[in-house]
Amino acid sequence: MKRITSLKNNLIKDIKKLSQKKYRDQRGEYLIEGDHLVEEAVNAGAPIVHVLFTEKALTAFSLLLEKIPESCRLLVTEDILRSLSSHPDTPDILAVVAKTSPSRVIDYSRPLLLLDGVQDPGNVGTMIRTADAAGFGTVVLGEGSADIYNDKVLRAMQGSQFHIAVYQGSISEWIGTCKAHGLNVYGTELNPQAADYREIPKTPAFALVMGNEGQGLSAETLSLTTQNLYIPITGQAESLNVAVAAGILMFALKN
Amino acid sequence: MKRITSLKNNLIKDIKKLSQKKYRDQRGEYLIEGDHLVEEAVNAGAPIVHVLFTEKALTAFSLLLEKIPESCRLLVTEDILRSLSSHPDTPDILAVVAKTSPSRVIDYSRPLLLLDGVQDPGNVGTMIRTADAAGFGTVVLGEGSADIYNDKVLRAMQGSQFHIAVYQGSISEWIGTCKAHGLNVYGTELNPQAADYREIPKTPAFALVMGNEGQGLSAETLSLTTQNLYIPITGQAESLNVAVAAGILMFALKN
Repeated sequence: MKRITSLKNNLIKDIKKLSQKKYRDQRGEYLIEGDHLVEEAVNAGAPIVHVLFTEKALTAFSLLLEKIPESCRLLVTEDILRSLSSHPDTPDILAVVAKTSPSRVIDYSRPLLLLDGVQDPGNVGTMIRTADAAGFGTVVLGEGSADIYNDKVLRAMQGSQFHIAVYQGSISEWIGTCKAHGLNVYGTELNPQAADYREIPKTPAFALVMGNEGQGLSAETLSLTTQNLYIPITGQAESLNVAVAAGILMFALKN
Repeated sequence: MKRITSLKNNLIKDIKKLSQKKYRDQRGEYLIEGDHLVEEAVNAGAPIVHVLFTEKALTAFSLLLEKIPESCRLLVTEDILRSLSSHPDTPDILAVVAKTSPSRVIDYSRPLLLLDGVQDPGNVGTMIRTADAAGFGTVVLGEGSADIYNDKVLRAMQGSQFHIAVYQGSISEWIGTCKAHGLNVYGTELNPQAADYREIPKTPAFALVMGNEGQGLSAETLSLTTQNLYIPITGQAESLNVAVAAGILMFALKN
């Protein structure tokens, strides 16, 4: 097993750059933190490039480490992990994972979640996690949405990238394709004139489009959907957090 | 109108300390940022101690500023606002608001949300905002829950502290009081043996107890409720974010 003790080691410096989207795109790799996510990656058969861990992890996570090829294992110092981690509490294990592309065959038999310019990484990650929990098959990140390999997205997503197909693409094109496959496409708006979501019959497959935190969906996107929904606000708050609204709708609409 | 240009001004140094809970508690004041929250505070008649703003805000928010007594207004430099703000994009207006206690008369005619050790400030703020939107009257922050005047709670809450009664207290005592008032008290657990939330009839008033992000509700708390609920997970995610789960339940249970 290889050991690295210097913060100036070139491999460590390279891994540190994965905190920037530019390098993640260039190298086709990203960093996950903590035994829970590393275990999710191993169980999903995700391509692990390196696993980095401290002496402590050698005993604490020995079963997990055994599942990862010897040649990928790097024993490092706590200082090195701290320099690579974005967590306030540095975990004892990290992994570099190769990005993979989702299947070219889209699953239209299960619901799809389309995110049109959702910017906050915590919201994007939480929505993918919720889509996974609700049995959705696909999430599409439109232009202006946070990068799925951003550390805050990864933390909020809790490994759901290993369970669900996540695509990047044009939301208007995806709306067209979903309609061509006979799916209802539901937009969301803060307009009591839109349909009350509680009146929509539950179905096994549909597409739900959620918009930007501040602006919501554009008038253009709202004109492309088959129907637009509204969550009635009975208190004094002006709106809901977009990830909470998405959660309410995903669980209410899916059969 | 008073002007302050020095970062070393004693009042500015005092306001800066409000980022720490210790000083917020000592002084009974907290800081809100941005014209939206300042407007919410003004509309709610919240006791504004100081409003701090730049030259830019003088024109941009002149109508809002007119609603605040002259003696509270402090024209400051952008540097000063930047030093006080926790936002990456410093707003042009901030206010120091005096904490107020919620009414001693608890409203049991509307639902209550009880948070038992919810630690993440974003989650706590989002849950209070959602409770406000869903028409809840009361939120109780139990021991170990994030401080309501933490800047991340305030940002996620979006002014809902001005609409809804937020108490601090012992969750087990509140469960007892809610039951004594004839309310159903619903706990939440990740246990498919618990009742499926979709089978619970909607009612105008009840109490919903949400637990810690990692541990959920303690066995002791679960034994005090009248019924414990489960949100069926149909995908591969192990659980939902607590604020999303709370949103689904609040909107599903309330009549």
